[in-house]
Amino acid sequence: MNADILIKNCMVLPMDGRGIIAKGIIATKDNTINYAGPITRAPNIRAEKTLDATGMVAIPGLINCHTHLAMTLFRGIAEDQPLETWLTESIWPLEAKLGPQDIYHGSLLGCLEMIKSGTTCFADMYFHEETVAKAVQKAGIRAVLAPGLLESLIKDLAEETIKQTIQLAERYHKPNSTIKIQLGPHTVYTCSLDFLKKVRETATRHNLDIHIHLAESEEMANQTKAEYGKTEAQLLQSIGFLGSDVLAAHCIHVNQEDMQTLAKYNVKIAYNPVANMKLAQGTARIPDLQKLGITIGLGTDGPASNNTLDLLRNMKIAALLQKAHYRDSTVLPAKNVLKMATKDAAMALRLDDTIGSLEPGKRADIALIDLKKPHLTPLHNPYANIIYSASGSDVQTLIVNGKVIMENRNVKTLNEEEIMEKAGETSLNLLTR
Amino acid sequence: MNADILIKNCMVLPMDGRGIIAKGIIATKDNTINYAGPITRAPNIRAEKTLDATGMVAIPGLINCHTHLAMTLFRGIAEDQPLETWLTESIWPLEAKLGPQDIYHGSLLGCLEMIKSGTTCFADMYFHEETVAKAVQKAGIRAVLAPGLLESLIKDLAEETIKQTIQLAERYHKPNSTIKIQLGPHTVYTCSLDFLKKVRETATRHNLDIHIHLAESEEMANQTKAEYGKTEAQLLQSIGFLGSDVLAAHCIHVNQEDMQTLAKYNVKIAYNPVANMKLAQGTARIPDLQKLGITIGLGTDGPASNNTLDLLRNMKIAALLQKAHYRDSTVLPAKNVLKMATKDAAMALRLDDTIGSLEPGKRADIALIDLKKPHLTPLHNPYANIIYSASGSDVQTLIVNGKVIMENRNVKTLNEEEIMEKAGETSLNLLTR
Repeated sequence: MNADILIKNCMVLPMDGRGIIAKGIIATKDNTINYAGPITRAPNIRAEKTLDATGMVAIPGLINCHTHLAMTLFRGIAEDQPLETWLTESIWPLEAKLGPQDIYHGSLLGCLEMIKSGTTCFADMYFHEETVAKAVQKAGIRAVLAPGLLESLIKDLAEETIKQTIQLAERYHKPNSTIKIQLGPHTVYTCSLDFLKKVRETATRHNLDIHIHLAESEEMANQTKAEYGKTEAQLLQSIGFLGSDVLAAHCIHVNQEDMQTLAKYNVKIAYNPVANMKLAQGTARIPDLQKLGITIGLGTDGPASNNTLDLLRNMKIAALLQKAHYRDSTVLPAKNVLKMATKDAAMALRLDDTIGSLEPGKRADIALIDLKKPHLTPLHNPYANIIYSASGSDVQTLIVNGKVIMENRNVKTLNEEEIMEKAGETSLNLLTR
Repeated sequence: MNADILIKNCMVLPMDGRGIIAKGIIATKDNTINYAGPITRAPNIRAEKTLDATGMVAIPGLINCHTHLAMTLFRGIAEDQPLETWLTESIWPLEAKLGPQDIYHGSLLGCLEMIKSGTTCFADMYFHEETVAKAVQKAGIRAVLAPGLLESLIKDLAEETIKQTIQLAERYHKPNSTIKIQLGPHTVYTCSLDFLKKVRETATRHNLDIHIHLAESEEMANQTKAEYGKTEAQLLQSIGFLGSDVLAAHCIHVNQEDMQTLAKYNVKIAYNPVANMKLAQGTARIPDLQKLGITIGLGTDGPASNNTLDLLRNMKIAALLQKAHYRDSTVLPAKNVLKMATKDAAMALRLDDTIGSLEPGKRADIALIDLKKPHLTPLHNPYANIIYSASGSDVQTLIVNGKVIMENRNVKTLNEEEIMEKAGETSLNLLTR
């Protein structure tokens, strides 16, 4: 077998239904995995480049199902505030000033941070996604981009953004593209029902997925109930909005009927434990939602409410929050959490035909984690060591779409110093202009 | 001014009541800080060694108020289990096999992990503390060691361990010692009231502090109530056990009266958010306890229930858990959390005359965090960047008692590879012997 890259001497967690492969080997050709399995069953492989991954574990590149990437610029600007103050006094006034160049520099910083912590694909909802796409392509990673549709901001702009979203999709929805475009209606309380219906029709007509915030804030959930006499989920159902192409972020304030409705329509959920805790919005009932068969992917949410894009650190907290909430240490075991950031995340973004696991035919998106660290010793349970002990800085090497974009923590696609400097300047400039 | 070490060009968070020193400088002589403040007011300093800390922030060495260090050996051995199963089927049978050499290798691994994540002092309660002391001295860090007193295990052994504790204190309680010895009665349900009274008398007679677990498990709290008709705190009060020399770990299942009692006796608390969440034991009400004036230091608890000793990662979760529990994003702001791992932690261990802040006269225990990282950019709020964005791997250099024990992440006192290998072997051996 001819390969471009051969990764040898590593443990492999394929996340495709197979268990731990203690002595594994992975071969990639072009942008695809053509072998991922035990060394003992591997064919004879001739490779252009060989990576010796002794003492490392290979996992599928991590997938972040919900963020607002360029909010890296707001990291540390507004801390420990009530949600209302945070939004109205800090975040929204700053966002009103954001131009495409600002978004570009903030997104590059976000891409850099994600690469350095093992993330190969993310789902973004924000402004000027056309410039986010440029940053993503420069970084060499994968993304699902939803231009934010906030009708409450400027109605004409929201209508215009729908058109731009369709145009973006026409540009990027090509074979082997690393960018997928979604429609991004913000919430049921920032979009009218007529507008949401239009989004639904556009999604169906143009075969676009939808990314929306659902039942994040209890206050807004109550307001929706008061205004419409329905929960957010019921309201969306009543206008025919729900479907298997809908990714709903948060889903905290949902009742039993809502959960069954989400399951019935095969709606996907993005779980954002850190942001939900930091903004004190409540806890999504993950085991209950999973029991209903709902696909749940993990998200960091925006870096201003987290304050990192590090999915490894996020995964630990994802598990801890559920154990604390249910007062049951057995819920959301480590392997389940890793699945929520790989295989299930890919399903949530409807990319599971191409990414989310290490198996022949899938795109070569691979993270190598260095286990030769004090905090990862001893190695009895690789899932537990990854979820409970590792952090993003333990990711040594990252491959996206068959290309090594970080090797021994050196990012090959981006100039780290330049990006940090530019983002720092941009952030200061936003505060003062 | 003559100095041994001069740290220049850094931001300083002294945690002594002063705010952020944007352009700071620190000078140390022997084991003591003799200047820590703005460069503009610094005297002329001639130093043996100069550390250029451009782009870094200096904070007091982090203090871990509650752990069982050698449990590094059990990392990943028993995951996602109920507390009862975890203890009786996994941890206790393994602990029964632990010899001094095992503890030594597990402790060295723990010291190494702490050094690499910025911790300069920790409070330990475990077996064979005399060998933990040896590991601590080899590592060159600071420790407060409490030989665990479990009367329920073997009564005679517990009595004997009290004697050994006194002997250890005689050996280590010397001027400038980096090791302090405490009495370590395990809990009210593993020690009889008579034994606890004896511990109290010994503490008072020999001027020793006490480290105990209090109200961690709801089940055991209920059992105590059923057996004695009193809560754990009330029971301890009734036998005259409580005092300002008592460090109580957890304090989750305490009622309003208990909290007032703990405040009245100036009992110190160790808050262990990660272990409490992972073992699903409930949430200590930190803001309520702090409002009563109780000193609270942060702990990781044992690495088998965390699964790291990384206080930086622990601090983030410390804040998030409280915000989630109180459904209030303003509780436990970032600076308060850093205080719980420095100044307040030193008070909890009654070492605040020597450590916990960066000010002249205090021991030179200093962590330098490298802020030139994507996830720590931009820098608007150093407290927020440290608590919410940094992790242990961002600690670049560590000074303990006036000695540089890690520089640019190279640990000078320990052989990393050897320690990891030996701990790995020891852990495997424990499982199989």
